[in-house]
Amino acid sequence: MKQINVGLLGIGTVGGGTFNVLKRNQEEISRRAGYSIKITKVADRDIARAKEITAGAAEVTDDAFSVVSDPTIDVVVELIGGYTLAKDLVLKAIENGKHVVTANKALIALHGNEIFAAAQKKNVIVAYEAAVAGGIPIIKALREGLAANKVEWIAGIINGTTNFILTEMREKGLAFADVLGEAQRLGYAEADPTFDVEGIDAAHKLTIMSAIGFGIPMQFDKAYTEGITKLTAKDIRYAEELGYRVKLLGITKRTEDGVELRVHPTLIPEKRLIANVNGAMNAVVVKGDAVGPTLYYGAGAGAEPTASAVIADLVDVARMHNASVDQRVPYLAFQPEQIKPLAILPIEAISSAYYLRMRASDKPGVLADVTKILGDRQISIDAMMQKEPQDNETEADIIILTHITVEKNMNAAIAAIEALPAIVGSVTRLRMEELGK
Amino acid sequence: MKQINVGLLGIGTVGGGTFNVLKRNQEEISRRAGYSIKITKVADRDIARAKEITAGAAEVTDDAFSVVSDPTIDVVVELIGGYTLAKDLVLKAIENGKHVVTANKALIALHGNEIFAAAQKKNVIVAYEAAVAGGIPIIKALREGLAANKVEWIAGIINGTTNFILTEMREKGLAFADVLGEAQRLGYAEADPTFDVEGIDAAHKLTIMSAIGFGIPMQFDKAYTEGITKLTAKDIRYAEELGYRVKLLGITKRTEDGVELRVHPTLIPEKRLIANVNGAMNAVVVKGDAVGPTLYYGAGAGAEPTASAVIADLVDVARMHNASVDQRVPYLAFQPEQIKPLAILPIEAISSAYYLRMRASDKPGVLADVTKILGDRQISIDAMMQKEPQDNETEADIIILTHITVEKNMNAAIAAIEALPAIVGSVTRLRMEELGK
Repeated sequence: MKQINVGLLGIGTVGGGTFNVLKRNQEEISRRAGYSIKITKVADRDIARAKEITAGAAEVTDDAFSVVSDPTIDVVVELIGGYTLAKDLVLKAIENGKHVVTANKALIALHGNEIFAAAQKKNVIVAYEAAVAGGIPIIKALREGLAANKVEWIAGIINGTTNFILTEMREKGLAFADVLGEAQRLGYAEADPTFDVEGIDAAHKLTIMSAIGFGIPMQFDKAYTEGITKLTAKDIRYAEELGYRVKLLGITKRTEDGVELRVHPTLIPEKRLIANVNGAMNAVVVKGDAVGPTLYYGAGAGAEPTASAVIADLVDVARMHNASVDQRVPYLAFQPEQIKPLAILPIEAISSAYYLRMRASDKPGVLADVTKILGDRQISIDAMMQKEPQDNETEADIIILTHITVEKNMNAAIAAIEALPAIVGSVTRLRMEELGK
Repeated sequence: MKQINVGLLGIGTVGGGTFNVLKRNQEEISRRAGYSIKITKVADRDIARAKEITAGAAEVTDDAFSVVSDPTIDVVVELIGGYTLAKDLVLKAIENGKHVVTANKALIALHGNEIFAAAQKKNVIVAYEAAVAGGIPIIKALREGLAANKVEWIAGIINGTTNFILTEMREKGLAFADVLGEAQRLGYAEADPTFDVEGIDAAHKLTIMSAIGFGIPMQFDKAYTEGITKLTAKDIRYAEELGYRVKLLGITKRTEDGVELRVHPTLIPEKRLIANVNGAMNAVVVKGDAVGPTLYYGAGAGAEPTASAVIADLVDVARMHNASVDQRVPYLAFQPEQIKPLAILPIEAISSAYYLRMRASDKPGVLADVTKILGDRQISIDAMMQKEPQDNETEADIIILTHITVEKNMNAAIAAIEALPAIVGSVTRLRMEELGK
C-alpha cells in the first residue's frame, strides 16, 4: 500500500493522541484512505517523552526545522501552538513543498491570509479541521457540506472551558471565581485562563468560521471580544427564570451593512438545542438560506477528539496530495481570487436584543422613567420582571428584555438610565439571540 | 469559467428546490466550486410544470432516457424515487460514463452494492448525501470527517414524519391515529404513510449509514423494522415520568458477534440532546472511538434542505469529475476491496435495556412473581413504577425499566410474565438506549 510520511511537530496532549489513534486504528484508517499514513518523524523539546510515546516507531528529534526540511516527509502536522515558532515552521514547511495540517487556531486566525497565500504559490494543502471545535467536523461541513448555501449566520459554543464554567455556575449557583478554581483543579481550565475566559480563543475560532462562511479574509483584529469574568450567578438565575440560558457564544452574521463578528455571553431560549449543550462540550449552529439551521455537536478539545480531526485532515491530504488545484477544496472554502473583503461592523453597529438588569430604589415612577427612556429611542420591551426588595433592602432588581435594536442606541439608553437618580450603580447588559429561523 | 452540465431527472419538490437554489445562489456556489454548475436538461412526466419552473433556462423532455444518454451531460441528478425506473436510469447513466447524484435512499439501500460496482467499473462518481437526513451533511461527516475513528455505533432520528407525530403525541397527549390525521392535513405525512410510520424509510437510511460506518455491504433485508403505529400516549407519558423521551431511532452498532441494525421506538434519557429534537427535524449521533459522541442536526426533508445536499454533491462532483480513483472518497467510505461483510444480528440476538408495561390485578404477590421471573433470567431491574388503580378499576399498570440483557432472554421473560394469572393481556415492551459513552 502507498504510504504517506508524516512529520509531527509537538507530541504533547494532542500530538500524543494523534500518534496513538493513528497506531490503534491504522487498519481502519488505511481501509478508508487507501494509504498507510505513518508518523515517521517527531520533533519535541522533551525528547525523552517523545521516545516513550513513539516507542521506536518514529525518529525523534528536538530540532523541528529538521523535520520541515526532511525530503522524506510528505506532510507536516503542527501541534506546537502559539504564533511565532509555529508560524516560522509552517511557512518553512510550505516553502519546502510540504503539505501542512494544523490544530492552531491562533495561527490561522492571525496569519491565515499569509499562510494560505504562501501555500497557494507552492501548490500545497494547509488543513485545519482541528483548529475549530476539536473533533466536530465543522470546517468540512462549512467548506463542503453546506456549499450550496448563502450562509446567513453562524453561532457557536466553541470554548469548552467557559462552557464548563457556565454550566457549573448555573447548576450550582456558584460565582465565576469559585468555579474557575474548580475547573483549574479538574484540568478544564489552564493556570492562566485569560485566553479562554476572556473569549479570545473563541474569537480565533469564530474568525476562521466567519471567513469560510462568507468568503472573506481573516480579520481577527476586528472581532469584538467579551468574556465571562463579570458574569454573575444572579444574572444566570434571572435569565433562567425568563426561559433563557447564558452561553459564551461566538456569533458571526452577514448583514446589509457588513459582517458582525463578536464573542460575548449571550441569552438563548432554553428550548433551543444549543442552549442545552453543557459541560465542556462544543456545538455550532450554521444557518444557510437553503438548508435552514443545522447544528454540529461534540467534544471541542481533548487528546483523541482533536486527533480525530487532525487525522481526518491527513486522510484528505493523502488522497489529494497529488491532485490539481481545481480538484482541491479551496483553503477558505471560496476560490482564492473570490475572497472578497466585507467590512466587519464595530460593536456599536451590531443589532441585538438585550437583557438589562438594574438596581432601583423602591420608589414610584422609576419604571415609568426607564420605559420612557427606552421608548424614546424606539427600543421596545419584550418582557419585564421586577423583584421584590429583600428584607432590610430598599432597592430591588428590575430585569428588562428588549426587542432588537442597534447597540449604539442601547448604549445611549443605558447611559440615560444610569443617570436616573433612582438607579443605583450601573446597568448590567447582556445580548440575546433567538437562533431560530 | 468551466461549466458542469447537469441533467435533472424529476423536477418535483426536491427537483424544483434544486433548480431554484442553484439559480438563486449560482454566484456563491461558483465562487466556491470554481465551476459554473448548470442544469441544462430536465426530464419530467409533467412537461408543463417543468417548463414553468425552468422558464427557458433548460431543455425539457419527458424522456428521461434521452437525458442519461445525452453526450453533453456530465452529471445526472436522479430525483424520481422508487427502485425500478430510477435503477434503470442510474445504471444507464453510469454505463454512459455519467456521474450520478441521487437523493434516493431506497435505491441505495436496496441496490447500492450493484450500483457502486457498476460505477467503479466505469470510473464514475455516485454521490448520495441527500439520501440520508436531508440537508444534514451526515454522509460527508461519516465518510470523511470521522475517518480516523472506529465507529462504535450510530443512532438517529432519520424520519421527520414520525418525529413530528411523536412530538405531537407527547405535547398534546394524543393518540397515534389522531396525530397522523393532523400530520396528513399539514403535509407532514403522505396519504399512504406506511413507509414512514412502519420505519421502512428510516431503515433505508440506517442501512446506508451502517454500511459507511462499518465498511460493510448494504444489507437492508436484514434490518429489523418496527414502527410507531402501536405506540400509545400512555407509554409516552409513563416514559416521561421516568425521565425519558420516546423517539423512533435507527440504531446500528458493531458488537463482537456482529452488527445490530434496527429501527424501533426507543426510550432515551431526556437530558440527551437528541431526546430534545422535536417536530419534523432530524438528528444523528455518531460514536467514534477517538472523537466520542458527535451529533448532527437539521432539516431531514423539504425542497431546499434536500437541494442543499444534492448541490453539495454536485460541487464535489464538479471538482472531482476528472480525478483519479485514488483521489476520490470511496463510495462506501472504505476502499471497495476493503468492504468486508459482517453478520447482521437477528433481533433476538441484540442487547438492550427495556421498558415493560403490564396490567396486573391488584392482588398481593404479583410484583414478587414478576421480579422473580426477571431475576431467574439474570435481568436486573433499574426502576419500577406502580400506578394506583383508578376508581372503579381492579387492575393497575406496572412499569419496569431493566438493565441491558439479550432480547431472546427478554422474550422468554415476557412470555413467562404474560402467563401469570394476575397479568391481564400482553406486556408492552419498548427498548431503551443511553446514547452516552
